[in-house]
Amino acid sequence: MLDDTALDILFRKARTHRRWQDRAVTDAHLQQVFDLMKMAPTSGNCSPARIAFVRSPEAKARLKPALSEGNVEQTMTAPVTAILAYDLKFYDLMPKLLPHNPDARGWFADDPQAAEVAAFRNGSLQGAYFILAARAVGLDCGPMSGFDNAKVDNEFFHNSSVKSNFLCNLGFGDPARLHPRSPRLDFAEACKVL
Amino acid sequence: MLDDTALDILFRKARTHRRWQDRAVTDAHLQQVFDLMKMAPTSGNCSPARIAFVRSPEAKARLKPALSEGNVEQTMTAPVTAILAYDLKFYDLMPKLLPHNPDARGWFADDPQAAEVAAFRNGSLQGAYFILAARAVGLDCGPMSGFDNAKVDNEFFHNSSVKSNFLCNLGFGDPARLHPRSPRLDFAEACKVL
Repeated sequence: MLDDTALDILFRKARTHRRWQDRAVTDAHLQQVFDLMKMAPTSGNCSPARIAFVRSPEAKARLKPALSEGNVEQTMTAPVTAILAYDLKFYDLMPKLLPHNPDARGWFADDPQAAEVAAFRNGSLQGAYFILAARAVGLDCGPMSGFDNAKVDNEFFHNSSVKSNFLCNLGFGDPARLHPRSPRLDFAEACKVL
Repeated sequence: MLDDTALDILFRKARTHRRWQDRAVTDAHLQQVFDLMKMAPTSGNCSPARIAFVRSPEAKARLKPALSEGNVEQTMTAPVTAILAYDLKFYDLMPKLLPHNPDARGWFADDPQAAEVAAFRNGSLQGAYFILAARAVGLDCGPMSGFDNAKVDNEFFHNSSVKSNFLCNLGFGDPARLHPRSPRLDFAEACKVL
């Protein structure tokens, strides 16, 4: 079991950040996050998540027109904005990912609807692994759904099978600028034991 | 930053388990997992995940006909099987979840397609938080997509707006029964830095 400090960093005291300290997110940080998140489970190890790390001013400018107004400032000032995406043709890498099962590619390649559901479900699972992996290596996250997916896809994944899922700002947040935390559901509101 | 032991427990040495030690998963475990996972972020704090913990022999028998053949034994022998689900009408709880924004319910209630995408995306994020929270409190996980969602919905969420997403066995795995780990993608296969 993890100790209280680790549980606080991952879950209990971690917060979504919108204001950032002037402190860079390095290539080494991005590699660390990916090397952790990639280990967590997906269906048949299908690993559909793809990530575009938007860090340069030029790339940020390409992202800006797709953002909801309320997300512009926090994104333009973030050291890095990750576009969490998924590849609808993830199955083309199944021979590498599940080498002991030569049928695995066909499970999805022959059923585009199953592939789309699997890509979205497992790409979202990997998006959550990404958030907790970033927190685990000491970064703060600002995940967002408020943007125009079609614009992002056209700008960053044109003529490909990759589709954007959500955005996640990365950096070192300013704890003094946080709002109070919103309530969560109680166990009995969300769970039943049968 | 988390220490190596914690990173191993969450990501690097954790494995998907299919064989279980004879050791119970208690109500206290389930509460601990939920109390951690509920703190991790969702869009507008919408928190659509719902969980049915299938533990009694009677409930396991209701689940069995919906399972893919290859998932029956590991599920019938698991101390608990969690049905990770999401509520398409999660927005009815938005006044509790986002009390400072009285418009939040309407964002989704007035747009069923947006609500469905948000429920699936955020319910999946919460499913991943669930897996890592379970590992964080010392449990092993066996997540599965191989089952008949419609059968599970009809049996466990009949006449409701709750839909099954994936299943996750919970218990204490037998490390001696694990297969070698499958490969993961390299950073350059899944990521680009712009």
